[in-house]
Amino acid sequence: MPTYNAPLADSLFVLFDLLKIDSDKYGDIFADVDRDTVSAIGEEFGKLMTDVVAPLNVSGDQQGCTLANGTVSTPDGFIEAFEALKAGGWTGLVADPAYGGQGLPLTMGNMLSEYLNSANMAFSMYYGLTIGAYAAIHTCASDELKAKFLPKMVACEWTGTMNLTEPHCGTDLGLIRTKAVENSDGSFDITGTKIFISAGDHDMAKNIIHLVLARTEGLPEGVKGLSLFLVPKINVDDEGNLTDSNHVSVGSIEEKMGIHGNSTCVMNFDGSKGFLIGEKGRGLKNMFIMMNEARLGVGIQGLALSEVAFQNAREYALDRRQGKAATGQKDAGETADRIIHHANIKAQLMSMRCFNEASRALVGEISVLTDVIHYGKDDDKIKETAKDRINLLTPIVKGFLTDKGFDNAVVAQQIFGGHGYIAEHGMEQFVRDSRIAMLYEGTNDIQALDLISRKLPAKHGQTVMAYLQDIGGFIVANQDNEQLKDIIEALQKAAEALQGALGYLMEHGQKNPDNAVAAAHDFMHLMGTVTFGHIWAKMALVAQEKLVDDADNDFYKSKIILAKYYANKHLPEAKGFQVKIMSGADVINAMPIEMI
Amino acid sequence: MPTYNAPLADSLFVLFDLLKIDSDKYGDIFADVDRDTVSAIGEEFGKLMTDVVAPLNVSGDQQGCTLANGTVSTPDGFIEAFEALKAGGWTGLVADPAYGGQGLPLTMGNMLSEYLNSANMAFSMYYGLTIGAYAAIHTCASDELKAKFLPKMVACEWTGTMNLTEPHCGTDLGLIRTKAVENSDGSFDITGTKIFISAGDHDMAKNIIHLVLARTEGLPEGVKGLSLFLVPKINVDDEGNLTDSNHVSVGSIEEKMGIHGNSTCVMNFDGSKGFLIGEKGRGLKNMFIMMNEARLGVGIQGLALSEVAFQNAREYALDRRQGKAATGQKDAGETADRIIHHANIKAQLMSMRCFNEASRALVGEISVLTDVIHYGKDDDKIKETAKDRINLLTPIVKGFLTDKGFDNAVVAQQIFGGHGYIAEHGMEQFVRDSRIAMLYEGTNDIQALDLISRKLPAKHGQTVMAYLQDIGGFIVANQDNEQLKDIIEALQKAAEALQGALGYLMEHGQKNPDNAVAAAHDFMHLMGTVTFGHIWAKMALVAQEKLVDDADNDFYKSKIILAKYYANKHLPEAKGFQVKIMSGADVINAMPIEMI
Repeated sequence: MPTYNAPLADSLFVLFDLLKIDSDKYGDIFADVDRDTVSAIGEEFGKLMTDVVAPLNVSGDQQGCTLANGTVSTPDGFIEAFEALKAGGWTGLVADPAYGGQGLPLTMGNMLSEYLNSANMAFSMYYGLTIGAYAAIHTCASDELKAKFLPKMVACEWTGTMNLTEPHCGTDLGLIRTKAVENSDGSFDITGTKIFISAGDHDMAKNIIHLVLARTEGLPEGVKGLSLFLVPKINVDDEGNLTDSNHVSVGSIEEKMGIHGNSTCVMNFDGSKGFLIGEKGRGLKNMFIMMNEARLGVGIQGLALSEVAFQNAREYALDRRQGKAATGQKDAGETADRIIHHANIKAQLMSMRCFNEASRALVGEISVLTDVIHYGKDDDKIKETAKDRINLLTPIVKGFLTDKGFDNAVVAQQIFGGHGYIAEHGMEQFVRDSRIAMLYEGTNDIQALDLISRKLPAKHGQTVMAYLQDIGGFIVANQDNEQLKDIIEALQKAAEALQGALGYLMEHGQKNPDNAVAAAHDFMHLMGTVTFGHIWAKMALVAQEKLVDDADNDFYKSKIILAKYYANKHLPEAKGFQVKIMSGADVINAMPIEMI
Repeated sequence: MPTYNAPLADSLFVLFDLLKIDSDKYGDIFADVDRDTVSAIGEEFGKLMTDVVAPLNVSGDQQGCTLANGTVSTPDGFIEAFEALKAGGWTGLVADPAYGGQGLPLTMGNMLSEYLNSANMAFSMYYGLTIGAYAAIHTCASDELKAKFLPKMVACEWTGTMNLTEPHCGTDLGLIRTKAVENSDGSFDITGTKIFISAGDHDMAKNIIHLVLARTEGLPEGVKGLSLFLVPKINVDDEGNLTDSNHVSVGSIEEKMGIHGNSTCVMNFDGSKGFLIGEKGRGLKNMFIMMNEARLGVGIQGLALSEVAFQNAREYALDRRQGKAATGQKDAGETADRIIHHANIKAQLMSMRCFNEASRALVGEISVLTDVIHYGKDDDKIKETAKDRINLLTPIVKGFLTDKGFDNAVVAQQIFGGHGYIAEHGMEQFVRDSRIAMLYEGTNDIQALDLISRKLPAKHGQTVMAYLQDIGGFIVANQDNEQLKDIIEALQKAAEALQGALGYLMEHGQKNPDNAVAAAHDFMHLMGTVTFGHIWAKMALVAQEKLVDDADNDFYKSKIILAKYYANKHLPEAKGFQVKIMSGADVINAMPIEMI
């Protein structure tokens, strides 16, 4: 049975030592969350995760969700754990106080979201989808709808869902067929079938508020004909009481690879009453307002699964004895050495830590920028810069973090040897669960294409140039730092590879867009690799400063060791990506599709 | 529901065009299997796979095996399919005619083994373990035991298993505790518990012949105290009749990530009667006689799962419509283009084909060398050279093919988008099933260490040097081939990276063995990448020759296109591996284990 402990010390390092959210720079955005407060919150939430939520992960997977008589039952213990989440006031942590929330920064919510997903990803999604639907309603809906629905959703008495995908269209939402027909009272009748609806139905809330993308008459075909509707499972009267069924039914629960504890449903809307959210024809645009935050949320899942898989692999490697270290036995008197003594196993664990801690820092950075936009009193220029950076890095956060998160779950499973394949250790579940994050909320191929075709050209390339200048400026500012010399040098080489690849794309992507499409996945990984190199160099610098007064601090020492490890073992991969990117699409286009 | 069609045309290309098994070079080793014969055999077997065995793959996974009243039931249809395999005479194809086999070359068996594993990996293992146990008995056991057990095993009336792993030891078999106590009649009483026993019990055969590694008294500790025993599930009298139970029981069926159609059992031996196979104290050595062939078998599973995953991803990409190609719509008049028109999807399919076809060629090459050793009338020198090459490349076949096979199953699943996560499409099963191949028969970390620490230093490095000289010689011989110029150049660069990494290992692995251990996995992939580059160049050369007289042949044209694709998109990865390898273990050893 796997275990989990929230990595609070590292979260605090990211927020306070690295990002310095308590500095004047951020005004009073983070005034309510000083180090002691975050520490106390993190500790209490972490305890709930370790004691209540994580122990339901394996059993939830084995039991799964069941559909009987039209309603879905969640695995044993989920209802009680959800009640505990509500009772602790955790569901409204980052929500608007006007609707019963506590109004804390999103940065706090994302920190805890990592813990929740590590503890039990399938369980976390019932809350995650609710906060997503909450955000969409909060941003786009009328005050009347907000007053009626948000307080219940903030309290998770009612939960939320997102209904986009249909059987014939996932990526290409312009093909959506679900219809919305306007009634005389301004409401709509919604009819259609949606698939892959996470938390589509369950027994943990009294009502479920579906956000549904549907097509109204009189609008153009394609995405411009789509509008967004709020469709409750059970109708709600003007006083907020639940009345009768709204003809929303579960067609089936999808049989899927993982996240079995979450009910992924086929949802049927059969003339269900819906309320327009935002303007007609702007459904997709309104959905996309939340897209960056939703994708950040999925990126966090990649980190979260990698973290819990790592923790369990480390424990196993510190316990399991097989063979003897190549440089001679380390555990004297034992029949065999613990496998952590084998340099290859140790390296795998270090690679995972490198990934997890850089991911946590990147998530923190993007979260802080999001709070700057939401809560900052700064001028528009600073907010625009923050938004540009978020736009640029969101495909990395979603695509790179979930690709690598899955890879790490596979490596962590491998450390268990044959035992990793056996369900009881829970390692194979991390692989199955983490796999979905590469697919939903826009597949990682879509993330890569988004980066290449929208984010790089944005503002005539100024956004990505500003990012490269940040990295370049950091390198120049620190090139005389003797202790970190090899880190800075490796970062410089990797940044040159990124710059080179970018130059190629700008020139050859215009000549033939297939050169860009073919390069997309490699470019996303190249940029992720360099981004992590930059983050590790910054973390090493912070650790170096801290060690001046605290020379024996193992936590800070490990940061420098890992930064050097990353610089030597992972940053060199940048060059390989560049070479592949620059080999273009001609060798692909040489193959007619009928010959594949 | 996934489908499968045996890639017979490519198998024929490998055996006859590339490896030329019908040339004088091989004497009469392959005399019984000319192109027409192989074609007819492959077609008939392929039909059995498509029509009978593959359709049981998804249902077998969903139903799994069940243990009741001490016996294991296999999924519906398995018994009938196994009977069809027996009725067709397929089980004895490569077995010794002295025991009822047909004595065909192993090359033929391995070709069909790929098909069987593609069609249904879990099902294939009941036969695969039997032929493995057959080989061990055939090589090591007394004539009496062989006469008694082999004919039934060749006919698969009785099946076989391999019992090595115990709860506390998988890799480190020196820790085995199962005991064998000698009886006065020369038989032994075997007592102990074995885990992860594939096909450990089932309802498709009347008896099961377990090969068990156990410890006898009076021998040293560690692996030198281990002997190999034949332990039938049901005792067999001198006339070959089944008599009474031999106290072999199933403790449980392991709950595992995949291959649910195969019963992976905890086996208890409780004073079960066993018969010594080979000499006392040579149990592990006798097991290792078969190790190369067993590992080749697992490598074939990597290829097989990648092939069937590819076939289904290709079909889906040729059918599914999402978005429009970057260079303008390709499927005129349709709402969207088929996703195969997107250069990134097409590239993923091409990468999979590159892997599958090079793997098939490598498996063919090693199979032919195995037949040269088994059946060749050549002098010892040629056989020794063949053995050296097999020893060197076996870790690549097992480790690289299964790592990449799993990666490809993941990519194929990704092409399905969210649908890839849903069980009914079968793509997620390929991911789960292929995962085991990286773990059993020696984890891929063990393969990498075997390559680094045993295979490279073998014969003072002459074996690997001979291999590099082959590649170098090929490059020199073909450097003036204008049409293949970029392929040869890319191969040369990659071969230089391999040479450079090897030089580093020879020098720095001696200084500190951790430099070699840390590099092991990357080196295995570097060598695999170059090996495939060499194979692709050779295949391109063959195709080029064929196209002289057959200029419109799409099959041969696609070989040249894929060779160029591989040279541009995959061979450049070699350099990145070299850099990582040469960064050594110091950055790993800088981290104390308690700080990880």
